Amino acid sequence: MSKCKVCREPAIIDLPRHNANFCGDHLQQLCRRQVEKAISDFEMLRPDDRVLVAVSGGKDSLAVWDILLELGYNADGLYIGLGIGDYSDISGRYVRAFADERGLTLRTIDLREDYGYDVPTAARATRRVPCSACGLSKRRLFDDAARDGGYDVVVTGHNLDDEAAVLLGNTLRWDIDYLARQLPVLPATSGFPKKAKPLVRLTEREMAAWCIVRGIDYQVEECPMAAGNRHLGYKETLNQLEARSPGSKASFYLSFLDRMAPLLVGHSQAATDGLNGCERCGAPTTGEVCAFCRLVATASAHEQVPVEMMGRRR
Amino acid sequence: MSKCKVCREPAIIDLPRHNANFCGDHLQQLCRRQVEKAISDFEMLRPDDRVLVAVSGGKDSLAVWDILLELGYNADGLYIGLGIGDYSDISGRYVRAFADERGLTLRTIDLREDYGYDVPTAARATRRVPCSACGLSKRRLFDDAARDGGYDVVVTGHNLDDEAAVLLGNTLRWDIDYLARQLPVLPATSGFPKKAKPLVRLTEREMAAWCIVRGIDYQVEECPMAAGNRHLGYKETLNQLEARSPGSKASFYLSFLDRMAPLLVGHSQAATDGLNGCERCGAPTTGEVCAFCRLVATASAHEQVPVEMMGRRR
Repeated sequence: MSKCKVCREPAIIDLPRHNANFCGDHLQQLCRRQVEKAISDFEMLRPDDRVLVAVSGGKDSLAVWDILLELGYNADGLYIGLGIGDYSDISGRYVRAFADERGLTLRTIDLREDYGYDVPTAARATRRVPCSACGLSKRRLFDDAARDGGYDVVVTGHNLDDEAAVLLGNTLRWDIDYLARQLPVLPATSGFPKKAKPLVRLTEREMAAWCIVRGIDYQVEECPMAAGNRHLGYKETLNQLEARSPGSKASFYLSFLDRMAPLLVGHSQAATDGLNGCERCGAPTTGEVCAFCRLVATASAHEQVPVEMMGRRR
Repeated sequence: MSKCKVCREPAIIDLPRHNANFCGDHLQQLCRRQVEKAISDFEMLRPDDRVLVAVSGGKDSLAVWDILLELGYNADGLYIGLGIGDYSDISGRYVRAFADERGLTLRTIDLREDYGYDVPTAARATRRVPCSACGLSKRRLFDDAARDGGYDVVVTGHNLDDEAAVLLGNTLRWDIDYLARQLPVLPATSGFPKKAKPLVRLTEREMAAWCIVRGIDYQVEECPMAAGNRHLGYKETLNQLEARSPGSKASFYLSFLDRMAPLLVGHSQAATDGLNGCERCGAPTTGEVCAFCRLVATASAHEQVPVEMMGRRR
């Protein structure tokens, strides 16, 4: 039986990249310290910030909310019902249970009730991959909720595996614009709140272990609309590299931030100059009507598509 | 039976990244054109250059020598006997047969006869991976042979798979210095000849097909000392990505050259300022004795190690 590196009690997890095993208590210590280090290194949060955590019901977003509360931050949750059949129903239940048990403030938005569409219908109506309509909807609704609720920062549960996979995709295409913007914290700009990803130094596996140790029930299924997408392929590629050479995933992402990101400052094309106000909602846009208002118009006019009708993409 | 995209005759190879099949004649045409494009895009060679091709006996170096001659370049060969048992003996025979059949000028160096060591012995004596001593020896001997023979350019057979794998390794570590120098042509600097890699737009598989179509016999074995090394692992990773998304390997390497390499100009630490002359050979070095002279001294003083004694590294 392997033992905790810190206290020599029985270990519950081995972490090859740290060349160590940890018991439940010391795994929690490690997670809290990695979050504190990320917050401090990248100046993500100030002690008195009002934080809005985007929660999906999966392990990462519930864990980051839990850890921020543990660290003493003032953090409310925001859940968006995406209308992806049973997957969304179950996800929503986990989020509400987490908030209710702890007496936390949870804001909720339901795409179908509040905006007249859902993700499967939006995907069909726009004839694009579901992740595209979903991402656009979430980004906009997080931004609006943060501004309307007077929050200083939107926090998301993106972990090291997520960020490394996105980085690999952007790197394989050498998409300089995306690479220049792939940072764990984005400052507030006109009309957009500050955004931070406190879990970038922690892996999926560590977050799953956090939830188990802390007794947090979460949605364990992958989103059925994301199955087979390229992002999951990149995660698999990185997991193979990590298995051959433990630590290479963290090194890939963190040394990017350390050595390459500084060389890319100023190479992002995301300019807020020259943007107009959307004629429907007033949000900054390059055209007359913003992408979100166009999505809402197209998707809400389309007959509802149940998730079961979408099929697998590949 | 699939047909050649150009002439509709029976095809001998399918190239998913070009979404096409080719007969032997039109595969040759494609290879010649890709080499011409690389030479022209990166200003690798002038028509009257005296070219020294570093030939190993493998498909790539024999193919690039063959293609350059086809394109009318004045190209001699240089073969270095590395002393890696049967592998080297057989490689040398293929090189000599290629040159003899065509009446070409082939220069040869034998590490054991001319410098008193071989690669297995050097690896054991320096206690480093064999590829390290091998690469150091080859780079220096190519440089010396080019200078002494009055050649304008040293050409190597590195193909797209080779360069993409090296790029992936450098990228996973974000080694800015190596990334800044990973170019298909390096200009001459004091003491070092110009170097060019005309096959960077062509794959291993295309080069194997070139040799088969042209009736060139080559060493098909991988070097036994390289088995299991990290470079081969990166090739495998890229082949998996390529299988999922044809064209991604070429896009990874060529878009690096196109979009990222320009941003890295000036970030290479390889400065020729402040170098001394080696006190034994006069070559530029940061210390008193250059790395090659130290290798020769250490390796030639060591008892000869047969390749069979080296074992697999992993």
